[in-house]
Amino acid sequence: MGDVALAIDGVRLATAAGGIRYRDRDDLALIEIAAGASVAAVFTRNAFCAAPVLVAREHLRSASARYLLINSGNANAGTGEQGLAAARRCCELVAAATGTHAEQTLPFSTGVIGAQLPLAPFERGVPKLVAALDADAWPAVARAIMTTDTVMKLRSASVQIGADTVSAIGIAKGAGMIRPDMATMLAYVATDAALSPELAQRCLDDCVAESFNSITVDGDTSTNDACVLIATGRDNPIVSTDDPRYAKVYALIAAVCMELAQAIVRDAEGATHFVTIDVSGARDQDEARRVAFTIAHSPLVKTALSAGDPNWGRILAAVGRAGVVDLRIDRVAIRLGEHYVIRNGLPAAEYTESAGQAALAGVDQFIGVELGLGEAHARVWTSDLTCDYVRINASYRS
Amino acid sequence: MGDVALAIDGVRLATAAGGIRYRDRDDLALIEIAAGASVAAVFTRNAFCAAPVLVAREHLRSASARYLLINSGNANAGTGEQGLAAARRCCELVAAATGTHAEQTLPFSTGVIGAQLPLAPFERGVPKLVAALDADAWPAVARAIMTTDTVMKLRSASVQIGADTVSAIGIAKGAGMIRPDMATMLAYVATDAALSPELAQRCLDDCVAESFNSITVDGDTSTNDACVLIATGRDNPIVSTDDPRYAKVYALIAAVCMELAQAIVRDAEGATHFVTIDVSGARDQDEARRVAFTIAHSPLVKTALSAGDPNWGRILAAVGRAGVVDLRIDRVAIRLGEHYVIRNGLPAAEYTESAGQAALAGVDQFIGVELGLGEAHARVWTSDLTCDYVRINASYRS
Repeated sequence: MGDVALAIDGVRLATAAGGIRYRDRDDLALIEIAAGASVAAVFTRNAFCAAPVLVAREHLRSASARYLLINSGNANAGTGEQGLAAARRCCELVAAATGTHAEQTLPFSTGVIGAQLPLAPFERGVPKLVAALDADAWPAVARAIMTTDTVMKLRSASVQIGADTVSAIGIAKGAGMIRPDMATMLAYVATDAALSPELAQRCLDDCVAESFNSITVDGDTSTNDACVLIATGRDNPIVSTDDPRYAKVYALIAAVCMELAQAIVRDAEGATHFVTIDVSGARDQDEARRVAFTIAHSPLVKTALSAGDPNWGRILAAVGRAGVVDLRIDRVAIRLGEHYVIRNGLPAAEYTESAGQAALAGVDQFIGVELGLGEAHARVWTSDLTCDYVRINASYRS
Repeated sequence: MGDVALAIDGVRLATAAGGIRYRDRDDLALIEIAAGASVAAVFTRNAFCAAPVLVAREHLRSASARYLLINSGNANAGTGEQGLAAARRCCELVAAATGTHAEQTLPFSTGVIGAQLPLAPFERGVPKLVAALDADAWPAVARAIMTTDTVMKLRSASVQIGADTVSAIGIAKGAGMIRPDMATMLAYVATDAALSPELAQRCLDDCVAESFNSITVDGDTSTNDACVLIATGRDNPIVSTDDPRYAKVYALIAAVCMELAQAIVRDAEGATHFVTIDVSGARDQDEARRVAFTIAHSPLVKTALSAGDPNWGRILAAVGRAGVVDLRIDRVAIRLGEHYVIRNGLPAAEYTESAGQAALAGVDQFIGVELGLGEAHARVWTSDLTCDYVRINASYRS
């Protein structure tokens, strides 16, 4: 990876204060994409998806996306027909101000569930957004989409491909899969690489699988999750994974996605530790991921990690209930950091409680599980479970 | 249901202080079963099951069980060959003191995982236990098997069948699926009904499905869970579910199991609410249970319940991610207590936030979900998630 990019050719951005929920900060953002760019997206798998997700999916199928309109403070979820009409109306406002079709705008919302989206902030704000578009506004957009996030999440990187420098910038918001009444994760990544639309989608799907879909805070999938990849390059586009340039572009996008995903876990509600769970020796990746997520979602493992307690009995019990067919206990090994705690299903002879405590003493914690059944491997990232998580999520919506 | 039974013909019990982990209390218990009784059992589904579970399963297959030997303070889990040998040796001690075969004793352990079970407490304690056997010692055994439980769990009931009074007594321990280093739920139910061994197993399987397997505190299945049903009646045994007496006996056993299961949830670590989750209108029971458990395990739902917050967006999001194929959002209804919050997938017109708050104000909370897809129904019980749960489980093992 080379220098940090501050802008991507073909992408301009703007923010404005709509006053939807927050005072004294911007809560509206517009991202303009040059004509001819490839735009790929993945959305929440939650069956209750929010109105903007339904509209964005529909628009993406019917036209080339030119604008992404984002608001924070209101998720426009659980809002029925009125919510769908509001999301469509927002797109029409962008179309009118830019001379494009409404289907060329994708809407995104994050915030309170179950309240109707007010249209006045968009009627006032969209013309201001269009007038303010600027290639350097990435940090402003990263801030405008925050809800319960405590830090802005922006990452960029570039790579040399032959004589060309190819860059990528990504921004994201998210600090829990859902906050009390907040719907969660949004991420936007742009690159000046030239990718065909099909390859852009393939690239995004693969990157999301190993980054955003490999993190968990509390296992609660939001109704509004979305991730968009914009590829603005137009000359000599990459159309196949066999193109030798693809591996480099993929590594670039994957690195930005991974850094953003991990930044979300580090900013998780109430979290005091950043936990990497690595499962190897599974028969296939699904099995490895199932074991890793069972550990990552165990309240008992998460509370032990918050205390830096090398409580391997809880990890072992989580592996045991992960539904691995014909699990061979006598092959299972568990590591905390570099220290083997369990080997062949039994406490490792050389393991000491003090070594386990030392392994979990830092902010970053590592749990390694070897199943001894096959060659497949998966890695997921999670946070610990603390009283502050409970406090944040038990505090009444105000 | 009639009067409370204080003893069951054909069952004698005793407790003793072995000093395995606790001071100044009994931690050993022996239950003697008259020859000819039917004994059925179900065990943890965790692939990492403890040594006593392996030995109890083996003994149950090879002989008629006459003694149940239970200790608290040490789970004898994660202890390898040495742990298996210890569990077998404990059974031999009972056999020597009673003139039975070692295979006629089933061992049970609950407590710290990963420490070898000391044999001295059993060598000293078993003769004392055998000498002290008494039909009235149910409450003493209920206390001796407690670990992090804050209350003793004992329930009994009786029913009139023709001229006969049939009674059942049950005891259980458990306050979390696993406590820091504690392995969890044990339950023993005895009845003086006469059931064939096959029917006793069928009766126990069905009762456990709707009681102990319908509760969850934190989703963490322990390595030591076990539930035993003893039926001591010998005359004119019930051998088929078609026998008109069976329905009454089943209702009796089911009621005792259900009360014990719910007592475990009420005693859950850190819990301040007892939550009933009722899912109807599913295509089959698996689907209904999946939706109910997804809600019951959601940290966001559980923290909202702890605050009495009618945060229906979180319930809706949990339903949406429960993996229901072709979920019809426009048919979903959600109730808090008697109040409809969501109807046809949208906020109910008559719902008010204050009605929702009132519905969740008491210790007992009710969430009803109607899927509108079929006729199947399931009900599960859970606790809320509080700071005290985190504190209890993050406190370092001492």
